[in-house]
Amino acid sequence: MTRRHNRTRGDRGIPEATVARLPVYLRALHSLQEREIATVSSEELAAAAGVNSAKLRKDLSHLGSYGTRGVGYEVEYLVYQISRELGLTQDWVVAIIGVGNLGRALAGYGGFASRGFRVAGLLDADESVVGEQISGLSVRHIDDLEQVIADHGVSIAVIATPAAAAQGLCDRVVAAGVTSVLNFAPVVLSVPEGVDVRKVDLSIELQILAFHEQRKAGGPGEAGAEGWGEDHDGDRADDRARGQEPPETTQYVEAVEA
Amino acid sequence: MTRRHNRTRGDRGIPEATVARLPVYLRALHSLQEREIATVSSEELAAAAGVNSAKLRKDLSHLGSYGTRGVGYEVEYLVYQISRELGLTQDWVVAIIGVGNLGRALAGYGGFASRGFRVAGLLDADESVVGEQISGLSVRHIDDLEQVIADHGVSIAVIATPAAAAQGLCDRVVAAGVTSVLNFAPVVLSVPEGVDVRKVDLSIELQILAFHEQRKAGGPGEAGAEGWGEDHDGDRADDRARGQEPPETTQYVEAVEA
Repeated sequence: MTRRHNRTRGDRGIPEATVARLPVYLRALHSLQEREIATVSSEELAAAAGVNSAKLRKDLSHLGSYGTRGVGYEVEYLVYQISRELGLTQDWVVAIIGVGNLGRALAGYGGFASRGFRVAGLLDADESVVGEQISGLSVRHIDDLEQVIADHGVSIAVIATPAAAAQGLCDRVVAAGVTSVLNFAPVVLSVPEGVDVRKVDLSIELQILAFHEQRKAGGPGEAGAEGWGEDHDGDRADDRARGQEPPETTQYVEAVEA
Repeated sequence: MTRRHNRTRGDRGIPEATVARLPVYLRALHSLQEREIATVSSEELAAAAGVNSAKLRKDLSHLGSYGTRGVGYEVEYLVYQISRELGLTQDWVVAIIGVGNLGRALAGYGGFASRGFRVAGLLDADESVVGEQISGLSVRHIDDLEQVIADHGVSIAVIATPAAAAQGLCDRVVAAGVTSVLNFAPVVLSVPEGVDVRKVDLSIELQILAFHEQRKAGGPGEAGAEGWGEDHDGDRADDRARGQEPPETTQYVEAVEA
């Protein structure tokens, strides 16, 4: 049970890339629920999530969910299945370490509570913010970190400190028994086996936008585009004939339509 | 030139999933540069980026970069190639709309400037913050949005407002000629063809952590794990024999090692 490094699959054989798309499907399904839509075709759900429908169907088949021909997927049941798979049917207790602008933004982020993430602790090293009320919580001093983790049963630590402080704090939360760390600090954290770290780089999405913006403006890739038709995207047979990968989209791509 | 919706490839035939990984490779390469490492093998770079090396080599081959057998990739040149491909060798002018906690965090985010993103405008509807100095910029009133876009040549708008305000502001930036929007507001934005929107959901990474945390705690997927060995990850031949997808990792996965 110690194979944690470079893991590319979940413990049940679900590919890591599928796991990463499940929250995107869930977000699309929640939108459908808000509009009181009870069933959805794989094509509709795929479009809403920004993936192709074959990939969607394959992803959901890992959950044992195949839909009904001619009907599609039952929204409420699929929400339950995905939430259950992701572990969102239980509450997760989160501590946010560092209450600068980012920590404050995260403390007030509505998307956490609605997905079962309960922020139970806010901690900072700055005496001047200790005791401040933010989103209903009183900021605790970082010296109390281990106490807060134990008292509230924190299972996920969110590190939103400057880079220099992050590793030391990560070591402390791990020593206190936390095995999941979400890192917003601009540094790569080292953790022992058995601990999961995910890092958020807020500039990555901007870089992907820049790629497309450059293309729109006629950037360096422009000349190379001549060998390609203008309408081949989504045509898997055509792509296979060219020896390319089938089309994929990534977890944060929205289906953008006029 | 109007095929913008559901696009899964860049204009040069680079798969969208590859585009999404380029910033991750770039981040790993910058770390190598900081350590004054001049060449890197595909295995080392893949491990640092959290992907398998076959995928890395295929991704880089789309850029015409194949490395040298027995030597690997020249770090500095690969940084240049990826930066050029992503359009980071030029400056991109960014406006941040909404200077609540998140907007302030983004305004001060070091990772933007170092990748060629220059924040030239901060805007808010709240009179009490207009004129405030944040990260060297004076906050402008949202009424000046079109003026700020025109004066500074803004090409990417970052929307960090409450959900209710986001669509109206998105419409205004698009009308003012901006064709790339990064959306942090918890709402799906509608844009005309030719405009790229990417949405950041800060809870997605937490959901992926929850998936693994649940497995560690012996969650619902546990029983289903019995049919799987404990050491099959990364074994592509084995995965193919089972009819599964080859291992993949996603853009934000860090290689986490003890």
